[in-house]
Amino acid sequence: MPEQGTPSSPPVTVVVDAMGGDFGPPETVSGAVQALGSHNINLVLVGDPDLIQAELSHLGGPTRRVQIVPSDGVIGDDEHPIEALRRKPDSSIVTATKLVKAGKADVLVSMGSTGASMASAVFILGMMEGLERPCIGGPFLGVAPNTVLVDMGSNVDCRPPLLLSFAALGSVFARRFLEIENPRVGLLSVGAEEAKGNRQVQESFQVLASSHLNFIGNVEGMDFFTDRADVIVCDGFVGNILMKFTEGLGTALSRFVEKRLESSLPPEDLARISFDLWQTTNLPRTMGGPLLGVNGSVVLGHGSCRAGGIAGAIDTGVRYFEMGLVESLREELASLDQNRPEPSLRAHG
Amino acid sequence: MPEQGTPSSPPVTVVVDAMGGDFGPPETVSGAVQALGSHNINLVLVGDPDLIQAELSHLGGPTRRVQIVPSDGVIGDDEHPIEALRRKPDSSIVTATKLVKAGKADVLVSMGSTGASMASAVFILGMMEGLERPCIGGPFLGVAPNTVLVDMGSNVDCRPPLLLSFAALGSVFARRFLEIENPRVGLLSVGAEEAKGNRQVQESFQVLASSHLNFIGNVEGMDFFTDRADVIVCDGFVGNILMKFTEGLGTALSRFVEKRLESSLPPEDLARISFDLWQTTNLPRTMGGPLLGVNGSVVLGHGSCRAGGIAGAIDTGVRYFEMGLVESLREELASLDQNRPEPSLRAHG
Repeated sequence: MPEQGTPSSPPVTVVVDAMGGDFGPPETVSGAVQALGSHNINLVLVGDPDLIQAELSHLGGPTRRVQIVPSDGVIGDDEHPIEALRRKPDSSIVTATKLVKAGKADVLVSMGSTGASMASAVFILGMMEGLERPCIGGPFLGVAPNTVLVDMGSNVDCRPPLLLSFAALGSVFARRFLEIENPRVGLLSVGAEEAKGNRQVQESFQVLASSHLNFIGNVEGMDFFTDRADVIVCDGFVGNILMKFTEGLGTALSRFVEKRLESSLPPEDLARISFDLWQTTNLPRTMGGPLLGVNGSVVLGHGSCRAGGIAGAIDTGVRYFEMGLVESLREELASLDQNRPEPSLRAHG
Repeated sequence: MPEQGTPSSPPVTVVVDAMGGDFGPPETVSGAVQALGSHNINLVLVGDPDLIQAELSHLGGPTRRVQIVPSDGVIGDDEHPIEALRRKPDSSIVTATKLVKAGKADVLVSMGSTGASMASAVFILGMMEGLERPCIGGPFLGVAPNTVLVDMGSNVDCRPPLLLSFAALGSVFARRFLEIENPRVGLLSVGAEEAKGNRQVQESFQVLASSHLNFIGNVEGMDFFTDRADVIVCDGFVGNILMKFTEGLGTALSRFVEKRLESSLPPEDLARISFDLWQTTNLPRTMGGPLLGVNGSVVLGHGSCRAGGIAGAIDTGVRYFEMGLVESLREELASLDQNRPEPSLRAHG
């Protein structure tokens, strides 16, 4: 395991958008307090002070190492992220992001809305030089915990140079965070041969093949489970569909197994296997996904996360910050920009 | 269940490419003979007569209702389908398809290569009027056996009018084969709102919304499990990735459950639940997928099918033929062509 902050290193300050996610303070505050027990961190909880305080009191009132910063308004999943940022400049996600920008917090953790959290990070923290859009990357399957998927965000219609950037970011994440030496990068397609795939993939194949990355060629849907690649690259359209599909399938298979085994297993064993099966298909719910490519340590969690998932996302954020991943990613993009092989392709889209 | 051929109706003649799939005659012949027991069919087995005869003898030598037609050569997964068709005009798949064209067989069942089987059907049987390319459609998940996915073939880079055709074909299949009245058609995207998705999806949304289909809008990855739509439409790039991903995940989760339960269940129960879990994520392996849009009843199976999957694909083919689905699909495409709302969009791609 990578080195964690020791008691002698200074505490990491984590700001949590307490109003975010599907459940708000009852889960976010509880998850944050849970994380307090396992890390040398200070917490900043942004949102409605009364609601946050009520939850803290409910949890036995931990106040040491916890600060509340009030905000006004919440941005929902149904709002257009950029418009909402303008209309709600004091909303919880904007306030939380500004604390990172001002250097008052080291890590931002948000359970969504994903769109507003991404937009807020892009506008307030800024993009890394040479990057058009950030992506969400990380392992997403409990049965393949060392396979990184980029993009899990929703960057649709990605041009090849953007997919190359995502591949580079995912590669650094795999190398530093998962300690995989020289990560193998695969491009998700419908066949292993170079000629297989849609136009986007065929063009991206060339761009990846001429890069300095350890590109192994196209991989297919089953290769999330075959250990052929450490980083699998696709646009956010396919990535988002895969993630939501997996969640749905995991839930359906949990029910399937529960039903099939209800007469052969005691209820508590049944509940445990069903939960494990569900969880193994829902890794981002337990550890969040870092937003790669913005100038700051930002981890986004799934909107439906409960306290455990929020604590997990905080854990990811603390490790991400302590490893100095923002700096590593920035260096990688800079080297990519120098080596970018096919500038003519950039004008395409 | 739809009516099956009764003993008084004439037998259906099924031609099987005995050389196809990953295993060839040992599995294809065995699967075909298995199907012979449950249907009023005649079998035509195309391939190397010696190998086929050896398998038939091995199975106790059924010869009644079985005819062997010799062929020369097999087209593999690694060959370019169209070139291979030209180079191997007497190959098993070409010979088998010609028997359907000549009216000597009613149904073609092939375990692949998928590319060669599709190309052979397109060139020899021909496309239905108004269609650019055929698609593979059908249910693909045991946990969602009434949700039809189109395209499971590999039609990448589909323009909106082609996706509309696929939606119409899938809709007829759901109505006739699965007996779903007025099937709800959903377009696979990254959010339910009309504006969500890549350019292809945004344009296709408009085309589907102006069609006579029962279009319910965008659906997301989890909606394969939420019963929001009966037919889910995506291009073959996404469809192929989803299918292969599901197969891989099913296998991984079977192993996961086996390992988790090895101390709590007797070995035979463990093997059964593991197999069931695998099978429920691999429906096309048990029933094949019809090739929608060609002038003939063609069912394609998964290359890795064993005898049971081949018998299942034959079952699908016999029902498909007996229901007169080719005629229904042809009528649907003709009505679509009359009603096609946005001819200007057809010039785009």
